Amino acid sequence: MTCVVELVGVGNELLIGKIANTNAQWLAKMVTNLGGDVRRIVDIGDNLDEISGVMREALARSPTWLLVTGGLGPTFDDMTLEGIARALEVPLEIDEEARKMVKEKYEGYEARTGEKIELTPARLKMATLPRGAKALKNPAGTAPSVMLHREATTIVALPGVPIEMQAIFADVLESLIAKTVGNRYLYSKTLRATGVIESTLAPLIDIVMHNNAGVYIKSHPKEPEPLPVIEFHLSMSSDLLETSRQKVENAALQLTKLIQENRGKTEEIERA
Amino acid sequence: MTCVVELVGVGNELLIGKIANTNAQWLAKMVTNLGGDVRRIVDIGDNLDEISGVMREALARSPTWLLVTGGLGPTFDDMTLEGIARALEVPLEIDEEARKMVKEKYEGYEARTGEKIELTPARLKMATLPRGAKALKNPAGTAPSVMLHREATTIVALPGVPIEMQAIFADVLESLIAKTVGNRYLYSKTLRATGVIESTLAPLIDIVMHNNAGVYIKSHPKEPEPLPVIEFHLSMSSDLLETSRQKVENAALQLTKLIQENRGKTEEIERA
Repeated sequence: MTCVVELVGVGNELLIGKIANTNAQWLAKMVTNLGGDVRRIVDIGDNLDEISGVMREALARSPTWLLVTGGLGPTFDDMTLEGIARALEVPLEIDEEARKMVKEKYEGYEARTGEKIELTPARLKMATLPRGAKALKNPAGTAPSVMLHREATTIVALPGVPIEMQAIFADVLESLIAKTVGNRYLYSKTLRATGVIESTLAPLIDIVMHNNAGVYIKSHPKEPEPLPVIEFHLSMSSDLLETSRQKVENAALQLTKLIQENRGKTEEIERA
Repeated sequence: MTCVVELVGVGNELLIGKIANTNAQWLAKMVTNLGGDVRRIVDIGDNLDEISGVMREALARSPTWLLVTGGLGPTFDDMTLEGIARALEVPLEIDEEARKMVKEKYEGYEARTGEKIELTPARLKMATLPRGAKALKNPAGTAPSVMLHREATTIVALPGVPIEMQAIFADVLESLIAKTVGNRYLYSKTLRATGVIESTLAPLIDIVMHNNAGVYIKSHPKEPEPLPVIEFHLSMSSDLLETSRQKVENAALQLTKLIQENRGKTEEIERA
């Protein structure tokens, strides 16, 4: 069973270079560790046509999960839910569960501050969901996360504020995703090679991958070619951790030997 | 004249969360400062079908520039050029200019180290370009950058090693992109507001944007709603810097006044 995941980041701040999409990096790492396969990450701006267009394109590829971050807040340019509704051709409606979640948060705020908080249109917007969606509690903020199904895909819209996104993931998403992965065990190892340049190593990687079916070796030059500092990331997923481990360790041994034959050295950086 | 830019990052390391796409962030910031409009950022893995598919999809949207980072090196999984060739339906051929660039780099290495470097297939791969492409010199590494035109779009493939990508951008791309932008002047200002929550501010932003046509105001909660720490990024592009500046400063004044009326405070964080 392959669990294919696509990530979409919504926010102009991503397109003007104000921030990198570290939400995508965090989610990609979590999903990969669960045994899922992140296939694509897309960043777009706060634009209704872009959001609905990207949703439609992603749904046409039928990923298992389509995780969208950003655009759930109270301001005019938070339009992720409207974009999803448009892509799915369903109306937006106030969801009673979501309204309760939002109301509770503001009641807590009223109790702490004495400030009276009305459920204004801007605030109710956070409880206005595409028809058929389910609100997921936000343990760290106000806007609920939103989950809905379309054919083989589960869409989840998460807030863009990292601690809110991470809290919701830990609270409910992690175990749901794990269930769709099946038993896949990833083992990986990182070696740093010095003293031999990447273009010399390229054919050696081919040999080692050919001899160790299933093991993936990715080289990351840490200095521009032809400076001889390269990191190798060896990894394998299988339904037995021991199989993944043995194959990766065996490939690492062979690679180390070939690098030594080319007057290079290796050291282990990481093993997981 | 609108200069629309799309960015594509190629590399499994982006999809497993090993790194965030900081190349995209750097390019997005540079392009935005030049007055260009980054519309989409896509990250995909080292997979030929994905690369050629994403290239075709992007070309169908006809951006002015399509900048691809990663996958230009000598190893088996560097397949960006093959992906571009497949998307454009042109063959790959050794390019004489590119071959000279690669050869020169290795001659320099031979001279420094005494090690003899043959132009092996792995090394010649970096000089094997889609037909019609032009090699751009890489001042900081070996793999040349590759530029080619398809209808209204200029495609540029850049190395994934950040200092190589940045060196090529500064060397030749920056001035080429600037020429396609025309005279657009961006002015922006960032305010930090405290003491009033985002959902209270949401309708105020609408008012200020309505009264200041052309000014874009984006709110970034720095703490989860309902905690009252919000940054506002106000920006405008126009063909006169003074117009952009006046409109943004005017909008900032109005916003500050409305925030004060709601018992909040603002301070200026940045102006550019």
